Amino acid sequence: MRIVLDGMGSDTCPEPELVAVLEARQKFGDEVILVGPEDQLRPRLQALAGDNPPVKLVHAPEVITMEDKGLALALKAKRKGSKTSLAVGIDLVKNGEADAFVTAGNTGGAMATAYYRLGPIAGLERPGLAGLFPVQGGDCVVLDIGANPDCKPEHLVQFAVMGAVYAQSLLRIQSPRVGLLSNGEEPGKGNELVRATYPLLAASGLNFIGNVEGKELYGGAADVVVMDGFTGNILLKSSEAVAKLITDTISSEIKASKSLRTKLGGLLVKPALKGALMKKLDPAEVGAARLLGVNGLVLIGHGRSDSRALVSAIRMAREAVQANLMDNLRASIQAHLSKSQDQ
Amino acid sequence: MRIVLDGMGSDTCPEPELVAVLEARQKFGDEVILVGPEDQLRPRLQALAGDNPPVKLVHAPEVITMEDKGLALALKAKRKGSKTSLAVGIDLVKNGEADAFVTAGNTGGAMATAYYRLGPIAGLERPGLAGLFPVQGGDCVVLDIGANPDCKPEHLVQFAVMGAVYAQSLLRIQSPRVGLLSNGEEPGKGNELVRATYPLLAASGLNFIGNVEGKELYGGAADVVVMDGFTGNILLKSSEAVAKLITDTISSEIKASKSLRTKLGGLLVKPALKGALMKKLDPAEVGAARLLGVNGLVLIGHGRSDSRALVSAIRMAREAVQANLMDNLRASIQAHLSKSQDQ
Repeated sequence: MRIVLDGMGSDTCPEPELVAVLEARQKFGDEVILVGPEDQLRPRLQALAGDNPPVKLVHAPEVITMEDKGLALALKAKRKGSKTSLAVGIDLVKNGEADAFVTAGNTGGAMATAYYRLGPIAGLERPGLAGLFPVQGGDCVVLDIGANPDCKPEHLVQFAVMGAVYAQSLLRIQSPRVGLLSNGEEPGKGNELVRATYPLLAASGLNFIGNVEGKELYGGAADVVVMDGFTGNILLKSSEAVAKLITDTISSEIKASKSLRTKLGGLLVKPALKGALMKKLDPAEVGAARLLGVNGLVLIGHGRSDSRALVSAIRMAREAVQANLMDNLRASIQAHLSKSQDQ
Repeated sequence: MRIVLDGMGSDTCPEPELVAVLEARQKFGDEVILVGPEDQLRPRLQALAGDNPPVKLVHAPEVITMEDKGLALALKAKRKGSKTSLAVGIDLVKNGEADAFVTAGNTGGAMATAYYRLGPIAGLERPGLAGLFPVQGGDCVVLDIGANPDCKPEHLVQFAVMGAVYAQSLLRIQSPRVGLLSNGEEPGKGNELVRATYPLLAASGLNFIGNVEGKELYGGAADVVVMDGFTGNILLKSSEAVAKLITDTISSEIKASKSLRTKLGGLLVKPALKGALMKKLDPAEVGAARLLGVNGLVLIGHGRSDSRALVSAIRMAREAVQANLMDNLRASIQAHLSKSQDQ
């Protein structure tokens, strides 16, 4: 097992990355590769772990930052001879020198680099970005959370096929319940895309439970929920923002309170609150998003990831390799396509 | 000032409605009209307020319930001689016998009934459902939260015009900051609809601040945020669901805790937590959604509304009448249309 970590991904890189590779190496025992500018990374790595750090360093002189955007970013990601840490790291997976790539860097840059360098799984129209949402009683695979702002019905069906494979392989759910995010539960509800997707999912052979709303998604009614990447991204980011608004409100309410009772209670309850919220909302716990549908395992973590979040993403990558996720995805997409052709 | 309340709207109707009309009558002093089946409402009203209750009762024998859905609902709402409480109540506004209509009933039924009976404001293509979202430091007018699952760019511009009038008239913001909900802040981000809407909003003469994400919306960066009704409905319902998940998690974490410290702290802090969350998330505080763009003031509350939520919706209706919202909406739509024609 060989996992590559982008050394230049997170907002405060490379420190969290350096700590994470060393910790992962110790924790999991197998090879971890760090990719990025050698002149920057080697001295810091040696300062942390001595002259012969137990981590392989692969040189990549260029970096795609969070400031890279739009067309310029696409061109940078697409460049054939690119030497960015994203390109060099993903090439290691492409060339069979590593099993999975993990980054906390620019999501758009990572998706574009992975797409151009690895290509989509044979027959697949659009890779999708899948997140694992914390919901009542467990986790829910949600996709697309941002790869494809505009989708066709068949794209959503393919997301559902891949999401179900994910839930089977990694959450060990035999027949994952698949929901379609909509503005109402009844079959006729939805926008044009959702209304056209519904009958396709119903005929897909998946365990399709129909339209779901936010209440069902967060209530744990489905194991997989699909939507276009625009809607999924709005869902993801507004959920994060609501969570922040609530926790900010609670803590400022406790702080501002003139009641001694509330102040004291706040102090006593603080660790438990923190525990509850961390478990549900911390990117370190929620982990990284997986780009499903390219020829290689690529995990993209939150820019705010700390070393703990990165180790957790590396663990997720290892689990995906162990569960043989890539082969399962390829087989399911093939089965889906031949089924569609038969109909 | 004469406000009509649908007697048969909320999930536990008519009790909350009966209490609300009596309370509103006492609180605001002006006429309140209750509409619904007289044989059901009169005895209960008299039981609460004596033989001559200070509230006018208008008979409507039929009811649209939460179970009415899809095409059947549309037909029921469209029927010309309809005697549902929605139809009779909205007709009072149409015929000038009342100034605004408030219901906590079936949102789709209320929107369809209002649209068919009142018609859209001259020149307007699509009425929009506007909600007032609690955000950092105040409120944000968000629309469309469910009237139009499929929209064209011009619809979103008209929503922005109406949302700005709402913020001016009711939040007293002179030059409301208008945002476009998107999956990224940069101008090129968004789905097809958002990318086509951006230049129209930039040229609209409104105080357009560009694309906003959940963070900016809930962070209070805009006074008005527009989107299609599918996306808005997903935003609304997933926000509610996340809020519920978090508060449930906190309270179950405190309950399940074995630590005496946490248990004690939980008891002490409970009223403050409740206060903070109620203020931010209670439908009674958030109030009702307004259907903007039909020829009459129509407010639609949450089905879960209690009497306090209904009184709060009646207060919102009164404020809209006092602020001359209808005339302001008509004038702004006219101004927008002639500006668009000039271009």
